[in-house]
Amino acid sequence: MSARNLLVAHGGGPTAVMNASLAGTVAEAQRQGAVDRIFAARRGIEGVVANDLVELTSMSGAELERLSQTPATAIGSCRHKVTEADFALVAATLRTNGIGYFLYNGGNDSMDTCLKLSERMDDIAVAGIPKTIDNDLAGTDHSPGFGSAARYYAVSTAELCLDVRALSIHVSVLEIMGRNAGWLCAAATLAGEAGPDAPRFVLVPERPLDEERFLASVEKEWSRSQGFVVVVSEGMVSAGGRELGAEGGVESVDSFGHRLPGGAAAYLAALIRTRLGIRSRSEKPGLLGRASAVLVSDTDRLEAREAGAAAVRELSTGNHGFMIGFRRVSNKPYSVQTVRVPLSDVANVERKLPDGYIGDDGMSITPKFAEYCRPLLGPSPYPDYFVLR
Amino acid sequence: MSARNLLVAHGGGPTAVMNASLAGTVAEAQRQGAVDRIFAARRGIEGVVANDLVELTSMSGAELERLSQTPATAIGSCRHKVTEADFALVAATLRTNGIGYFLYNGGNDSMDTCLKLSERMDDIAVAGIPKTIDNDLAGTDHSPGFGSAARYYAVSTAELCLDVRALSIHVSVLEIMGRNAGWLCAAATLAGEAGPDAPRFVLVPERPLDEERFLASVEKEWSRSQGFVVVVSEGMVSAGGRELGAEGGVESVDSFGHRLPGGAAAYLAALIRTRLGIRSRSEKPGLLGRASAVLVSDTDRLEAREAGAAAVRELSTGNHGFMIGFRRVSNKPYSVQTVRVPLSDVANVERKLPDGYIGDDGMSITPKFAEYCRPLLGPSPYPDYFVLR
Repeated sequence: MSARNLLVAHGGGPTAVMNASLAGTVAEAQRQGAVDRIFAARRGIEGVVANDLVELTSMSGAELERLSQTPATAIGSCRHKVTEADFALVAATLRTNGIGYFLYNGGNDSMDTCLKLSERMDDIAVAGIPKTIDNDLAGTDHSPGFGSAARYYAVSTAELCLDVRALSIHVSVLEIMGRNAGWLCAAATLAGEAGPDAPRFVLVPERPLDEERFLASVEKEWSRSQGFVVVVSEGMVSAGGRELGAEGGVESVDSFGHRLPGGAAAYLAALIRTRLGIRSRSEKPGLLGRASAVLVSDTDRLEAREAGAAAVRELSTGNHGFMIGFRRVSNKPYSVQTVRVPLSDVANVERKLPDGYIGDDGMSITPKFAEYCRPLLGPSPYPDYFVLR
Repeated sequence: MSARNLLVAHGGGPTAVMNASLAGTVAEAQRQGAVDRIFAARRGIEGVVANDLVELTSMSGAELERLSQTPATAIGSCRHKVTEADFALVAATLRTNGIGYFLYNGGNDSMDTCLKLSERMDDIAVAGIPKTIDNDLAGTDHSPGFGSAARYYAVSTAELCLDVRALSIHVSVLEIMGRNAGWLCAAATLAGEAGPDAPRFVLVPERPLDEERFLASVEKEWSRSQGFVVVVSEGMVSAGGRELGAEGGVESVDSFGHRLPGGAAAYLAALIRTRLGIRSRSEKPGLLGRASAVLVSDTDRLEAREAGAAAVRELSTGNHGFMIGFRRVSNKPYSVQTVRVPLSDVANVERKLPDGYIGDDGMSITPKFAEYCRPLLGPSPYPDYFVLR
């Protein structure tokens, strides 16, 4: 008799809806006759290597509901790059626990791990569940986690614009996550649909920064209105390829060799102050942007749950070596369906913000992006602000 | 016939419930027979000086409701220190518009302006409405704006703790507003009531930082758990009195001569990385913490509205030269009443976090503070997180 137990693990940075995918997986596996017992690894692939599992087979519906509402990951995650030595230990864990199905929920790095496992473990059905606030996974219209982070930044930016407009004494530079892709920076522009202001400049890593041109634009804008918001990606680079804000600071590199971003907003605020003599300050919500349960998108949460369930359904019908992706069937009304994407199309590929979403000036976002992004935020992200004309 | 019109102005940084106080003032003035027309100054005292007013006499109930739900300030604010030359212009604006009642909604600096106006304008009844997220206004149990900011930080810190626990690879240093007072840093500790973790160290300006002792404590804590949160005030100072993070940066000073704080978290994260070799990062939501309508405390909003209304009631019965304050009648059940506090007791006084709320180690907050703070956050600030044991 072949192994019929299921193992789930989480990889990379948490999101607001990663636990929702886990709940979807557990609920579907409980229903599927093909699965016997359900295990989760603690701390991602590290827990698989160390055979540190927890059994979730008998979670109640109420527990799954609470799990869905909890941000980050209840089973833990890691940023561990699997070594040759690890693979033998992983195989041992899978054998010891009778694992026939292995699901890995993560971003590009995790999908690379997932692909390697899929290629090496012939007798195990391996698949991926997408997860990234950065929205940089290939092969899918969008990824679970993005809609909630997008909602966080859209709403927070709308509130920030109201604050800055009210006081009218400074340029606020808001630093937004997303590593090397500008998807979340672009989402901040949806703030303009809620209140009287949107960010005046949006700096995405797809368009390296010409500092002189940027400063000239800020100076011109300041002459028109004393108080606006600039949005900048944490992974922003200068025209010379240098990461903004990394100069003089202490660099950190994760185990995949990626440099940890950050500091771009503080750098630009200082630049505006010193070069233009204009008061400027920076805001960097950082990890708060990916962990917010309060600003979660209900659409994102439902889709995350569905992605976790769909992966189990596909495995139980004999498919493997895929990541679940979303195909947008219709935009009005918004409707998606899950699809299988070959892991080899996804692993280590970074999907950048397309040219069509970036304005000709390289510092703005097109209305086409709003059409793409709006449905992902779920219903009514903003209160009905009162604005004095 | 004496002047019977009312003028309201906003001073200093916006909060999430400043507009709620304005709505309370307008609604009460509409009801009071003593008031004829209702005006608001645009951009605070600057608008009074420039005679830039907007009339709000006929705002509808629906508009007032929307105003109450809108963060920041719909009429604008400023950080302008009134000069001798300004006073004559202020007097002219008040005379021109038949103003008999003047209400100023702001913090310590604004109450100083309010006191000066009260002393010089014999024929105008002047009073203050409290407003500060920092909670550093004297003569009141707490100030409108604090409860909502406290809720923002308590919930955000709970979510941050879940994120950091899930990944377990770094110390996250969270920078919290509050200028020279530790009230909002203390509020972040309420996160421990929601989830499995609270911030391990809370650094408030009332206890200047001994860096060596702090580093030793972080190192010891890291040996027990790889992933926790440190909270630090934006106004944190070293034992030598130097403001953290200001070194090497560009200093900014507002028009009252206060140095603009910020950079403490980035400074400490770099210190932890370089001195201990422990991965550390910083989060600085900055202005997002005071502008969040999503995380507003319903209790705070109701009280803000009541403070705005009470000020009008007191003025219309002949009182003036006061700021509205809150006296806590009972903690369980929570109940407050409004009181009149002489402006001279409030102007330019900074109320720090009392010794009894700070732990003996100088880096923690006592349970007594939670008793004080909890009711101000309003009902159920946290979802029921699922935590795997």
